[in-house]
Amino acid sequence: MSDHLVAGIEPPYYTVVFTSRLQPDPSGYDETAVRMSELVEQVPGFLGYESARTPGGLGITVGYFRDEDSIAAWQRDPEHRSAQQRGREQWYERYSVHVGKVERSYDFERD
Amino acid sequence: MSDHLVAGIEPPYYTVVFTSRLQPDPSGYDETAVRMSELVEQVPGFLGYESARTPGGLGITVGYFRDEDSIAAWQRDPEHRSAQQRGREQWYERYSVHVGKVERSYDFERD
Repeated sequence: MSDHLVAGIEPPYYTVVFTSRLQPDPSGYDETAVRMSELVEQVPGFLGYESARTPGGLGITVGYFRDEDSIAAWQRDPEHRSAQQRGREQWYERYSVHVGKVERSYDFERD
Repeated sequence: MSDHLVAGIEPPYYTVVFTSRLQPDPSGYDETAVRMSELVEQVPGFLGYESARTPGGLGITVGYFRDEDSIAAWQRDPEHRSAQQRGREQWYERYSVHVGKVERSYDFERD
């Protein structure tokens, strides 16, 4: 899972906000999450992602993509589709996805 | 902090993605975060938020707002501005904000 912070992307780009709550025993989830983080790096137009999960609570992953084509390419990926299917069957209690076109952004970094 | 999952909002609406890394000892941060979560509820056009933080790692909060006016109203709030100032001075090592207009969304919930 990513522990870095994405900053300094110039518009146009999109945020894909994925919020989820896991089942109590999501066996195999962590390995698949690592594999997906490797796989998405190969998608043209993928700009980075950030991920956080409160223990026992919500997880939020934000993916940054240059355009709709790059989001569609990631959605079409067969291994990603298979992981999504398994997520619905085994891992997730709930999830929501919000795809937004970024209109502005700003960053702060301590000196 | 919110531990629920926002779902079922119909466009148009906006996501405000706030990702952050805290300083090692962010004294007073938790109390202010609770106060902000109460305060934002009073903003017309505020639709909800979700928040997650990996212990010792990234925090991600996603705020959902109906329109730019509601985002601007929250940005103008004096108590919020004061908290942001304190955040830059004391709490945050880094943060990024991405404001996006949502084009589509979908949800999954286990039966």
